[in-house]
Amino acid sequence: MSISKKQKSTPLYIKVHESDNVAIVVNEGGLSKDTMFPCGLKLIDDVPQGHKVSLTSLSIGEPIIRYGEIIGYAREVLQKGSRIKESDVSLPVPPTLSELIQDSTKTEEMEPINGYTFLGYENNDGSVGTKNILGITTSVQCVVGVLDYAVERVKKELLPHYPNVDDVVALNHNYGCGVAIDADDAAIPIRTVQNLMKHPNFGGEVMVVGLGCEKLTTSQLLSSDDKRDVVLLQEEQGFHGMLETIMKMAEEKLKRLNKRERTLCSLSNLVVGLQCGGSDAFSGVTANPAVGYAADLLVRAGATVFFSEVTEVRDAVHLLTPRAANEDVQRKLVKEMEWYDRYLERGKADRSANPSPGNKKGGLTNVVEKALGSIVKSGRSPIVDVLAPGEKATKKGLHYAATPASDFVCGTLQLASGMNLHVFTTGRGTPYGLAMAPVIKVSTRNALKEQWHDLIDINAGEIATGNATIEDIGTELFHYMIDVASGKKKTWADYWKLHNDLCLFNPAPLT
Amino acid sequence: MSISKKQKSTPLYIKVHESDNVAIVVNEGGLSKDTMFPCGLKLIDDVPQGHKVSLTSLSIGEPIIRYGEIIGYAREVLQKGSRIKESDVSLPVPPTLSELIQDSTKTEEMEPINGYTFLGYENNDGSVGTKNILGITTSVQCVVGVLDYAVERVKKELLPHYPNVDDVVALNHNYGCGVAIDADDAAIPIRTVQNLMKHPNFGGEVMVVGLGCEKLTTSQLLSSDDKRDVVLLQEEQGFHGMLETIMKMAEEKLKRLNKRERTLCSLSNLVVGLQCGGSDAFSGVTANPAVGYAADLLVRAGATVFFSEVTEVRDAVHLLTPRAANEDVQRKLVKEMEWYDRYLERGKADRSANPSPGNKKGGLTNVVEKALGSIVKSGRSPIVDVLAPGEKATKKGLHYAATPASDFVCGTLQLASGMNLHVFTTGRGTPYGLAMAPVIKVSTRNALKEQWHDLIDINAGEIATGNATIEDIGTELFHYMIDVASGKKKTWADYWKLHNDLCLFNPAPLT
Ligand SMILES: [Ca+2]
Ligand SMILES: [Ca+2]
Ligand SMILES: [Ca+2]
Ligand SMILES: [Ca+2]
Ligand SMILES: [Ca+2]
Repeated sequence: MSISKKQKSTPLYIKVHESDNVAIVVNEGGLSKDTMFPCGLKLIDDVPQGHKVSLTSLSIGEPIIRYGEIIGYAREVLQKGSRIKESDVSLPVPPTLSELIQDSTKTEEMEPINGYTFLGYENNDGSVGTKNILGITTSVQCVVGVLDYAVERVKKELLPHYPNVDDVVALNHNYGCGVAIDADDAAIPIRTVQNLMKHPNFGGEVMVVGLGCEKLTTSQLLSSDDKRDVVLLQEEQGFHGMLETIMKMAEEKLKRLNKRERTLCSLSNLVVGLQCGGSDAFSGVTANPAVGYAADLLVRAGATVFFSEVTEVRDAVHLLTPRAANEDVQRKLVKEMEWYDRYLERGKADRSANPSPGNKKGGLTNVVEKALGSIVKSGRSPIVDVLAPGEKATKKGLHYAATPASDFVCGTLQLASGMNLHVFTTGRGTPYGLAMAPVIKVSTRNALKEQWHDLIDINAGEIATGNATIEDIGTELFHYMIDVASGKKKTWADYWKLHNDLCLFNPAPLT
Repeated sequence: MSISKKQKSTPLYIKVHESDNVAIVVNEGGLSKDTMFPCGLKLIDDVPQGHKVSLTSLSIGEPIIRYGEIIGYAREVLQKGSRIKESDVSLPVPPTLSELIQDSTKTEEMEPINGYTFLGYENNDGSVGTKNILGITTSVQCVVGVLDYAVERVKKELLPHYPNVDDVVALNHNYGCGVAIDADDAAIPIRTVQNLMKHPNFGGEVMVVGLGCEKLTTSQLLSSDDKRDVVLLQEEQGFHGMLETIMKMAEEKLKRLNKRERTLCSLSNLVVGLQCGGSDAFSGVTANPAVGYAADLLVRAGATVFFSEVTEVRDAVHLLTPRAANEDVQRKLVKEMEWYDRYLERGKADRSANPSPGNKKGGLTNVVEKALGSIVKSGRSPIVDVLAPGEKATKKGLHYAATPASDFVCGTLQLASGMNLHVFTTGRGTPYGLAMAPVIKVSTRNALKEQWHDLIDINAGEIATGNATIEDIGTELFHYMIDVASGKKKTWADYWKLHNDLCLFNPAPLT
């Protein structure tokens, strides 16, 4: 990546790969026509910040190259120094999935790093929590009104007596009834709830509130008829009975959770989910590479790392299959992509609908460019396994967890897969947070960090201006992750208690 | 309907239609084998409450008739006095939609009733509110954490100064980004949000909180670029800036809303949505017929009434098409059913998944029986119009508002269609409530009213025991609706503030 050191008002662009024929403008507010870069390139259009400038003259049909990859083809003649707009670029077809399975994969061996620890809550099943939360699962949305009321009372009247418990969280969702429970795709939301229920941050305490007549039965959720941890509202004597039973069960569990203490745990117990949202053209050159660097450190320390977001990976999947640890993992990766292709086709989704309007404003031309910037988060480690949506991870190392790109859906599914720490990069800015696990927000631009000083945890914007390296920010993030996982530092989202609702991925119909 | 007057411990059954060859057991706890009914019928099986007994002997393949309609065919020989279980009944094919369009429809003319009024909040657009609420719409789920925080502060710090305002409600939902916004079916969630935003209970005050980079732009929601009523978080100076801007805009609107007063309005301004949830075999003989009686009174008084729930109507649609006001309405009805058939087929939904396990425990054998009991809510009025999901009503009279049967999805869509009062019948029991409009809950059984005395507003169970008529309960409900709409009486859901989350119907894929 070629960038020059920050000099106030010096025109700057970032060219990521030596073969790139386009670069993005770094300067805040963009640069105007006739601006001359130190290298001699002169702009022949106004170019907003993060948007692309052509480094050479391109004739019609010539490939436009960024990250060393083709992001599209010129639709008309593009002069050297011109601004490249969405309408100038034709969208390439995505990689043909069947051609991606190779006999052998060439993965880079990562040097292990030892001795890193964090202070976590050890669970009986071997998992480790980064928080100590009473989680109350719902089997159906019908109970939300009652449960929200009860949780407010639990927080007010009971929680203060159990100071070692961080929070009480209702796992509200829109699933459970009025859904095609026997459809093939119903497996996804069902296993998601089953896995959320046993999240490492709940300390092995399971508590489910159901109605009693819903399609998703509590027995199915618990895979048993044991009603010990279940409150069914239809079995209670009115609203008062419901409240009393929920409060009583909650207190029993709070008592046990309150006895837990943080102990020194190997960093290999961290399960870190990576995601981006509100991306811009800087995501792929500042925040995401820094996260990728930190991801490699985590993997080298033995931890588990997820990257996700199918629609933002699909167009760059040919760069991932060679990184699969073996052919089996390759096949799993291709299978998830195929499933998603069919799912989108069935619903007649328009491929150009991603990037979002905000992404485009931020300089991202199309989903190929977005994907190339998105997968940088995964670093360089081998992909040891691929998880279907909501599936629990059973290995250490880098995983591809197939999820939609939707921030709150991806976050919910990564939690179900066992994530106990979330890293979220953002260019345009989002106040995203999760109640179940800490969310570290990394900004791609200095301006966002300045504007949202009380929401952004780590700023990777200095990479664009040349005041910090990818390694600097990656290392800073790595150490910050350890402090957050240990409860020593609080993310802004947790400080303000800004938490997005869970959102299950249910590809099956409503009934 | 033949029922005998209640005599303690007298074995009772309900036969709905003279041609029925099955009846349901009324007695709490059910009746045991060898029980003799006053008419001489003797049970040859134990039969739980609400479950069916055969009134004659049925040979294999013979139709089983309830509500005067075929609910299925005997799979084996059924002796007179035997219990009819789900496995005894084969599911009939649903009515062929193309055969339902008739040249002429024969609708019953209803005698108008005049002079009924309620105390409502008149709006400039001609609609009338039953509450005076500050509604804050979201364009995307990303803002939920910030908005929930802000709404709590608005309620605590501002609302007490504006005593004429009933509530501040955040319209949180899971739509707005990470969705196939250009897919055909995206029209449904988009118009739902657009119509929710202008709900009659919001007094014409529109306030939208968005992020700034989401796919569902606030300009699209408002159909204008006017930003006066919009807060975009990405334009604010951090979390503090967001809070300040939201609170300031909220206060301006609270000031205006606080000046509003209830005035005497014609009952023709009521827009009542009907729904059932947690149904049992009594739903179709107690609560739903009483609601149907009240629905006819409403229509006769000039009001608008919706009934909904496609999957619970589909198998009885041949009883509805003849009630359509004209051929155009017939076609619209058939079109919505066809759309839903395809939607379920595309998702490989199993038709036997409705009724829910709770419905079945309550005695409902299959979706045909459930549908026959469900449509009784619609009374006998002509169907003047059919609404696609989330579409706004423009006429008075009885409407079929096509929605999924899922309680919270149906409720959300009926709100979007303009519902300002909701009537909800339940047999198994649900604590269902909505923040945007009052929800009146009607129980089908005495036992539920006794058990949930602090949640059920109206009990229709006395109809089964013969201590009240359908007309008695229907009239009671009609007057209670007027009192609730006038703010003179509070439903239990509003008393406890038990409110289900909104849930948009998005048949298009996530991306
Ligand atoms: Ca992303
Ligand atoms: Ca995302
Ligand atoms: Ca229903
Ligand atoms: Ca329903
Ligand atoms: Ca909520």
